[in-house]
Amino acid sequence: MAFYEETESFYSDLFDELFPILRSITGPGLRQSYDILSRYMPLEYDSFPSGTKVFDWTVPQEWHCQEAYLLDPDGVKVADMARLNIEVVNYSEAVDMELSLEDLQAHIYSLPEKPDAIPYVTSYYKKRWGFCMSEKTRQALKPGKYRAVINSQFIDGQLDIAQTVLPGSSDKEVLISSYLCHPSLANNELSGPLVLLGLYHRIKKWSHRRYNYRFILNPETIGSLCVLSKLGTHFKKNLVAGLVINCMGGDPAELVFKHSRNDNGLLDKLLYHLNKHDFKHGNIAFSPLGGSDERQYNSPGFQLPVCCVSRSFHVGYYEYHTSLDTKEYMGIAPLLDSIDKLEKIFLALEQSATFVNTHPYGEPNLGNRGLYPTLSFYREEQTKQLEQLNHIMMLLNYSDGSKDTVEIADLYGCSVVDMQWAIEALESHQLLVMK
Amino acid sequence: MAFYEETESFYSDLFDELFPILRSITGPGLRQSYDILSRYMPLEYDSFPSGTKVFDWTVPQEWHCQEAYLLDPDGVKVADMARLNIEVVNYSEAVDMELSLEDLQAHIYSLPEKPDAIPYVTSYYKKRWGFCMSEKTRQALKPGKYRAVINSQFIDGQLDIAQTVLPGSSDKEVLISSYLCHPSLANNELSGPLVLLGLYHRIKKWSHRRYNYRFILNPETIGSLCVLSKLGTHFKKNLVAGLVINCMGGDPAELVFKHSRNDNGLLDKLLYHLNKHDFKHGNIAFSPLGGSDERQYNSPGFQLPVCCVSRSFHVGYYEYHTSLDTKEYMGIAPLLDSIDKLEKIFLALEQSATFVNTHPYGEPNLGNRGLYPTLSFYREEQTKQLEQLNHIMMLLNYSDGSKDTVEIADLYGCSVVDMQWAIEALESHQLLVMK
Amino acid sequence: MAFYEETESFYSDLFDELFPILRSITGPGLRQSYDILSRYMPLEYDSFPSGTKVFDWTVPQEWHCQEAYLLDPDGVKVADMARLNIEVVNYSEAVDMELSLEDLQAHIYSLPEKPDAIPYVTSYYKKRWGFCMSEKTRQALKPGKYRAVINSQFIDGQLDIAQTVLPGSSDKEVLISSYLCHPSLANNELSGPLVLLGLYHRIKKWSHRRYNYRFILNPETIGSLCVLSKLGTHFKKNLVAGLVINCMGGDPAELVFKHSRNDNGLLDKLLYHLNKHDFKHGNIAFSPLGGSDERQYNSPGFQLPVCCVSRSFHVGYYEYHTSLDTKEYMGIAPLLDSIDKLEKIFLALEQSATFVNTHPYGEPNLGNRGLYPTLSFYREEQTKQLEQLNHIMMLLNYSDGSKDTVEIADLYGCSVVDMQWAIEALESHQLLVMK
Repeated sequence: MAFYEETESFYSDLFDELFPILRSITGPGLRQSYDILSRYMPLEYDSFPSGTKVFDWTVPQEWHCQEAYLLDPDGVKVADMARLNIEVVNYSEAVDMELSLEDLQAHIYSLPEKPDAIPYVTSYYKKRWGFCMSEKTRQALKPGKYRAVINSQFIDGQLDIAQTVLPGSSDKEVLISSYLCHPSLANNELSGPLVLLGLYHRIKKWSHRRYNYRFILNPETIGSLCVLSKLGTHFKKNLVAGLVINCMGGDPAELVFKHSRNDNGLLDKLLYHLNKHDFKHGNIAFSPLGGSDERQYNSPGFQLPVCCVSRSFHVGYYEYHTSLDTKEYMGIAPLLDSIDKLEKIFLALEQSATFVNTHPYGEPNLGNRGLYPTLSFYREEQTKQLEQLNHIMMLLNYSDGSKDTVEIADLYGCSVVDMQWAIEALESHQLLVMK
Repeated sequence: MAFYEETESFYSDLFDELFPILRSITGPGLRQSYDILSRYMPLEYDSFPSGTKVFDWTVPQEWHCQEAYLLDPDGVKVADMARLNIEVVNYSEAVDMELSLEDLQAHIYSLPEKPDAIPYVTSYYKKRWGFCMSEKTRQALKPGKYRAVINSQFIDGQLDIAQTVLPGSSDKEVLISSYLCHPSLANNELSGPLVLLGLYHRIKKWSHRRYNYRFILNPETIGSLCVLSKLGTHFKKNLVAGLVINCMGGDPAELVFKHSRNDNGLLDKLLYHLNKHDFKHGNIAFSPLGGSDERQYNSPGFQLPVCCVSRSFHVGYYEYHTSLDTKEYMGIAPLLDSIDKLEKIFLALEQSATFVNTHPYGEPNLGNRGLYPTLSFYREEQTKQLEQLNHIMMLLNYSDGSKDTVEIADLYGCSVVDMQWAIEALESHQLLVMK
Repeated sequence: MAFYEETESFYSDLFDELFPILRSITGPGLRQSYDILSRYMPLEYDSFPSGTKVFDWTVPQEWHCQEAYLLDPDGVKVADMARLNIEVVNYSEAVDMELSLEDLQAHIYSLPEKPDAIPYVTSYYKKRWGFCMSEKTRQALKPGKYRAVINSQFIDGQLDIAQTVLPGSSDKEVLISSYLCHPSLANNELSGPLVLLGLYHRIKKWSHRRYNYRFILNPETIGSLCVLSKLGTHFKKNLVAGLVINCMGGDPAELVFKHSRNDNGLLDKLLYHLNKHDFKHGNIAFSPLGGSDERQYNSPGFQLPVCCVSRSFHVGYYEYHTSLDTKEYMGIAPLLDSIDKLEKIFLALEQSATFVNTHPYGEPNLGNRGLYPTLSFYREEQTKQLEQLNHIMMLLNYSDGSKDTVEIADLYGCSVVDMQWAIEALESHQLLVMK
């Protein structure tokens, strides 16, 4: 592993290295990006050959693209992938032809409502070619003959996903995922993998983990379908919570979580609970409209408890999917803040579990175990100190396998984080075991 | 089939033909009424011989009654079935005797609180005889000898029910039922069968039906028990909604639905849903007190999702079960309005179903099927056009067999009627199949 | 049986006989107290030998204590069990030693915040010795040599519980329990067994009981664990409601019920229901913190529907567990009032049951059974008299085994007590049978 540190300069440099790469859902740019990240976390790759059937989909051929530009009648490059790689429609087929401005129009994409922005456009599953430019540039195009050159190939290759696991003491698992397939876009792309890298290092440092933490990077949609084709059954059995991470930069001070479809996962419940105890994140309901890989995890055949977190994605932002989504717009500081906020939530998740009382018939004799006073003599000032004893009594009485610690903390009126001492004391006396 | 048209004059003439017939829960008047209606819809009869055990009940003998009158001391007919057939207590036994006014009083029924109204009285299961008259007539009766003549017989015969089915593309069934056993009463009798006839013709015209629509006419209570003895098991398996229709005339502008006992049938849910989308009908909770055949369908052994619709029945009306319940009180126009309103609700019911997504693992590739843009390029004005695409995404994600289209429409915030295009598109691509 | 009467003088005399006895969780004082009560109700004893394993606990040796006193340097008895038996720490081991005031302090218990009160202290499961005195007495202790004398023995013997059952017509059972182990304390001890005795006599007089009523007296905590070790399986099968009774005296006018853990027992539901119909008792949620034997009955392995009733216990009172908890503080009149209030609630509980309609397919023919008019002629004044008929229709329709009479009364809007006539009429016609 190369040297990692959680500093703005480290993240800024890493961003700068990743930003210019021409990524897509397959191909050399994606693999190059994984390789850069794998210097700092031990990524393993799974490959799905072109043509592989993945549920209702087929893994497409790899797209390789060496150059793409559009020459105006004066020979000026009015669009050029070499300048900014979203200026070519991603997955464009090869072309080398002259054509009039009029004929060219059908191959040009621009946004009249955002005249300075170059849009990001893809056509993965239908053969097309095209160029993206700002509306201003488009309006300035001169009549005459244009030359469109795209030097690209579709090659039988593979689609790659990258992952690593930090093991815990149980079979239960937490998924932390981000996607990596957009070319030079900052907030809606690189912010996710960069925060995921930071979380990996934070969680790796914990002295104990109840849950396995699985970190996955994949191209969007088709990549998460590949993940599910390999791990769907495993997830259905073991996953207690999942989180798709994207758009972790930008202005908003607080994170916003889009909850899972059934809103009944451990993280779903915890997010509401923590809001009662000084956590300020927002919560919005699941919807299959818009969104990202969480739609696949939450499809009706899987219904996994996977949420999606961002700062601004769920409400939309002006720079989205355009050349305006830059490092300056995103910022590096918000990424470090996101790492910090998410770790706090995962630390609370570690205390969130369903336990079973191993001595359910009556109360266990706590006095014998040093967990309860052996003398029935209560002074007023003592009753004020009984907080932890109260946690113990609550946990023992309600841990019948039907209530988790978040629900028990709610019944008592405290945060599940506050119950950590009592949970660990009862676990160490084998009075509670994880269900 | 004879010529049918949905006009006031057609319905007025048909009403006039049916009104004067002496109906009861058995006997020639009931069969004659069925025969008249069967000119306009293909009714099939089921017969239950007198003495047949039907659950806790026994089919009574047929009641035939040729004449019934009461002569006062001057030989004036102060009650006469020939004038108005509710002037004899329905199911009266034969009598031909002279008796004093004093002795006669126990055989006379009148309503002091409605002095001009002749009440409608029956005694199906206990032998009695009697006459009904207005309180005004009763108060004017002179002392002296009266002669009571009822020429009636109880005959081993049968009880008849009449039905027809408009088939649909699934096994699931909708019941539309009304009762036909009261003699000359308008709103609380003939309005129901007449509206049922109109609905039959409306639904028959639909190009496609998901559900079978079963139309049943029967004498009240004992008739619906006979229906259940024959079809109860079938209904428990297939019935998704049922509706007992009566009192479709009178003043109130809007229909009122008494919901089913468990209030969890498809129609129950739809009725609330439609109220959020410009439908103005009222809803009241089920009760086993009062009411009609829905009480039998909703008995604890069946608990069928059968509602009951009327304009005024559920709140009560002054003319109920008296000679004041006339064609003038009822009106013909409200019947045609009822047909129209009920058809709209049944059209919505056709879109209300539980579907299963046949490609539940991840999202199906909609682009391949022409249901989704193959180019990822969204302009603001386009996102406004995505309504149908949104319906598709909602239907696919939530159709896991646990949610019906009404619930999915509620989640999206539209009417289930608005989702018709998307439902049919997904069905035609075999992406959704009815559960 | 000796002569019993529900009068203040009878209860006052019985209290006076029981109060001075040195009780503990085992030993001769407990047995003597049972024997006194068994003059007035037929108690049977179950004995658990010292050393018996009871779930996670072990029955302790019997504690016998003949004398216990503390002599000050002048030979004055500053603490003396013979004066008030809470002046010795309950379950103190034997001691006979001289020691300085300084060394003595660790063996003295007093309450600075209640300077006149002698606290009640126990140490059942850890060997200790000590004396209890008021803070005022403690502050006046002179320096010098003290002599501590406790003449006590731990003897292999047994722990005893006492019970009797009033049989009902079904297998279902109601538990009424109180504890008897504190020495001279009034409200938080003797009030419970005395009210239990009164309830026994009230319920014995009923002409009919649907439920078995089991009355149990036991030492607190370890005693209820012994009860559960013997009857836990029986209770899980048959118990529909339970009530731990204590602190039935003191100021508060109304009883307060702490509900069972799952708050879904028959008594839980009834208590809320009765509050809608002129009953004024209070209701508080279950908690495993504080409380008495209901904690054992509501432990996760049993989760029995056992509530706990008191006047003041659940909110706490100044005199609790001190020498201030006297007959004068408690009062005798509140005990008789408690008997009266609790009997009314148990009478309502007798009407609270889940029945099954034996004729669930359609409505049974009530006319044949004299339960419904055979003539369909309703006058306005009659419809006002139909209350009982309405109860009958409600009970028949909703008695499908999933709803009890309390829920059905709620649906109709009356008290379950009001439905007694209809319930008994339908039972006597075998139209309803208890589930």
